[in-house]
Amino acid sequence: MTTINSSVFTTETMTVPGGTETILRGGRDLFPLLPEGFHGIEKIGVLGWGPQGRAQALNLRDSLAGTGITVSVGLRPGSTSADDARANGFTEENGTLGELLTVAADSDLVILLIADAALAAQHETIFQTLKPGATIGLSHGFLLGHLQASGRDFPEGHPVIAVCPKGMGDSVRRLYQQGATVNGAGINASIAVHADPDGHATDRALAWSVALGSPYTFATTLSSEYRSDIVGERAILLGAVHGLVEALYRYFRLQGSDPITAYERSTEAVTGPIARTISAAGLPAVRAALSGADQELFDRAYSATYLPARDLVAEIYDEVAEGTELRSVVLADQRLATRPMTAIAGSEMWSHSAEVHERRATTTTALDPLTAGLFVATMTAQVDEFAARGHAWSEIVNESIIEAVDSLLPYMHARDVAFMVDNCSRTARLGTRRWGPRFQAAYEQLALPALDNPADAKAIEAFLQNPVHEALAVAAELRPSVDISVS
Amino acid sequence: MTTINSSVFTTETMTVPGGTETILRGGRDLFPLLPEGFHGIEKIGVLGWGPQGRAQALNLRDSLAGTGITVSVGLRPGSTSADDARANGFTEENGTLGELLTVAADSDLVILLIADAALAAQHETIFQTLKPGATIGLSHGFLLGHLQASGRDFPEGHPVIAVCPKGMGDSVRRLYQQGATVNGAGINASIAVHADPDGHATDRALAWSVALGSPYTFATTLSSEYRSDIVGERAILLGAVHGLVEALYRYFRLQGSDPITAYERSTEAVTGPIARTISAAGLPAVRAALSGADQELFDRAYSATYLPARDLVAEIYDEVAEGTELRSVVLADQRLATRPMTAIAGSEMWSHSAEVHERRATTTTALDPLTAGLFVATMTAQVDEFAARGHAWSEIVNESIIEAVDSLLPYMHARDVAFMVDNCSRTARLGTRRWGPRFQAAYEQLALPALDNPADAKAIEAFLQNPVHEALAVAAELRPSVDISVS
Repeated sequence: MTTINSSVFTTETMTVPGGTETILRGGRDLFPLLPEGFHGIEKIGVLGWGPQGRAQALNLRDSLAGTGITVSVGLRPGSTSADDARANGFTEENGTLGELLTVAADSDLVILLIADAALAAQHETIFQTLKPGATIGLSHGFLLGHLQASGRDFPEGHPVIAVCPKGMGDSVRRLYQQGATVNGAGINASIAVHADPDGHATDRALAWSVALGSPYTFATTLSSEYRSDIVGERAILLGAVHGLVEALYRYFRLQGSDPITAYERSTEAVTGPIARTISAAGLPAVRAALSGADQELFDRAYSATYLPARDLVAEIYDEVAEGTELRSVVLADQRLATRPMTAIAGSEMWSHSAEVHERRATTTTALDPLTAGLFVATMTAQVDEFAARGHAWSEIVNESIIEAVDSLLPYMHARDVAFMVDNCSRTARLGTRRWGPRFQAAYEQLALPALDNPADAKAIEAFLQNPVHEALAVAAELRPSVDISVS
Repeated sequence: MTTINSSVFTTETMTVPGGTETILRGGRDLFPLLPEGFHGIEKIGVLGWGPQGRAQALNLRDSLAGTGITVSVGLRPGSTSADDARANGFTEENGTLGELLTVAADSDLVILLIADAALAAQHETIFQTLKPGATIGLSHGFLLGHLQASGRDFPEGHPVIAVCPKGMGDSVRRLYQQGATVNGAGINASIAVHADPDGHATDRALAWSVALGSPYTFATTLSSEYRSDIVGERAILLGAVHGLVEALYRYFRLQGSDPITAYERSTEAVTGPIARTISAAGLPAVRAALSGADQELFDRAYSATYLPARDLVAEIYDEVAEGTELRSVVLADQRLATRPMTAIAGSEMWSHSAEVHERRATTTTALDPLTAGLFVATMTAQVDEFAARGHAWSEIVNESIIEAVDSLLPYMHARDVAFMVDNCSRTARLGTRRWGPRFQAAYEQLALPALDNPADAKAIEAFLQNPVHEALAVAAELRPSVDISVS
């Protein structure tokens, strides 16, 4: 699953711990190859105008300008997103905005970006309207999991491909725009070819990924993508971050910190200096930035946290891989009809966001060693669990590290963690509510009470020697040509 | 499911809100009827020596002394429980202690009290060893859920009955002993008849329940018992209590309380005066015990808590009813082979248990109005959700109130909450770890931040008019002849 065979694009071999992976380096210089890559595709229909639908429709249209390949947006009747789509140039008048099923019936590549629950409810109707041989496009593996749970699969005769950006939709668009004047920028993406009846599925997936602006594209399977994606957002990408800052804010307050200091030592440290240090120089750089008693505290915090965090990631992984998590999402979605989703920003800490953000003009947030130890241990636990479950290194570093430090945490820094969570998919929002409290409890009941134990020299050595650092360094050479800037 | 037809025991009709339920009042005066009730049963085999196995084997043996019906205990080879069984008179020498399958093969009533996961793994082997027509006895509905999850059922030709004490095993034994000099005491139990090929299943279930010392016995189905039992322990019986005291202890500390005061206002208030008040006089008595500003705070706390708690109970109910919770328990059990169960008493608060307990000699714990509001709202939310899902009132009040205030909370008061959780079944221990943090987060992020909102007059009125108070009052007339005393 980690090789890519293309007759259109020139791939590269990337050395990763224990082997190699085939990747495609992106860039605007490849846009002339897009028509050949999109073999047989004249009309692309993007169904849905959530953050991913919006970003992908816009990037695809911009990248394909002048090629004759059109991009249309399909929305359910009465969708409140129609106005924003029109404001962005997708209109009924120019034939690029229509009803969901009309656009599905008219397109050669139908990209399914409606919400998971809607997809679970409507996929059969959509499949029935497709042109013969039309390519089915996905941006994550949820639908495969849903189909497999009831012993089904995608309809015969249709290529089924996925291009899965490793970042939220808004960042997919924002980086693409911010990198327009250099040779492009964007969010790394994985591709998966699930069905290839005409032999052109891989090239179409690569073309789609290049058109989105992906700095580099790696290969996976729908199943592997689904598992790492759903587990990752429940763990280090969203759930663990929320649980971490809820636990640490109260911890610092109980240790005597005033609210602003407690906020800065927890949330601000994670979304600011810790994320930036990892982004720029990798995980060991966080520890190396500390010295003396601070580094020793980092080591104790790391040692106290790694196992409880690993246990939780393993639990989430089992639940996702065995289908219980997906079933829970469907049940939760049904309850939303009568019980609205609960608020996630209710804790007192979030009332201090504005003041902390104002203080950025005059203060520099320190890299808190305790917070850093808990966060880095949790991130490493996810990396190790993914490696133990056989994921490719590109998938591991993108789903566990790069998506966090280059996409989500900068957004959390610009707004706040709770706000950010509720700008993600409903599946992610529900998952954060399910698992964030579990991480909080693990930190409060297991990690923080063990802080006084001496550091575990073996755990620290394993961290310093972890092969992920090599894998991340290789991936970092392919990172976007610009850092994301969140206004 | 709420009527009982017996040719041996004289049942009574109990008036409950909206109708009636048939119940059997227990008592040692009924012991002469046990041989007739246990129609065709000469040998009872109790498999397992956990808290329930131990209590039931001892109570059955004592109640059946002199009848000629024998009680034997079956254990897996090498069980560490064998010594305690021998110390209690179940020995190889007198033929009442043997290997699991040997005892199963030799008994007319085989009571399955090994751990859920072991039962899931071994039930087929056990079924194959049974005598023709031997009665299968359960003490909760887990196995039915497990069988149904894979489209199976119990083997044909065997009566299948359940007697489900609404309290932990230790209390089943302790109350039986403490009530020996009056006309008996024990823990209320529900019975379910799942298969009745010879027409004597109901009488056997009633005899078993009477022999355990149940003050009153009510009827349910295995499925209904399973759902209320598993949901209840995840919510108000264990999970919500743990989440509540973890949240409130930190809350009071952050409000300026010292550790001892914070412990007393949270844990001590729940396990002491709140539980005792409900046990003696019902839920509204908690509010009535408060006046002025305290009652007003109770009302605000109740109003802020009810909906978030109800949402969570509904979520747990869905997960249990749809089988995902059971699947998660099986997955968790598999992980225990390589990852030991995490500690649950790690929070700093538990280090103060001993000092708080010592202070009981000289201080009286107040009924904290804030803690009371959160706890009573959560208990009422469970009651209302169970009623909405169609459970019988006897089941609702026993699984939501009586088991809490007359069995579990007194034990938590004697030791502490965290200790108590880990003296329950593995299914309950795992469930508390899964759901306790969810309740904590709901209290911290939703209920406590809403405390300053005015009380919801409609919610308070609905609480005061709740039909559960009438149902609990009727059940209370049948309560044990002695209060439990935990040394």
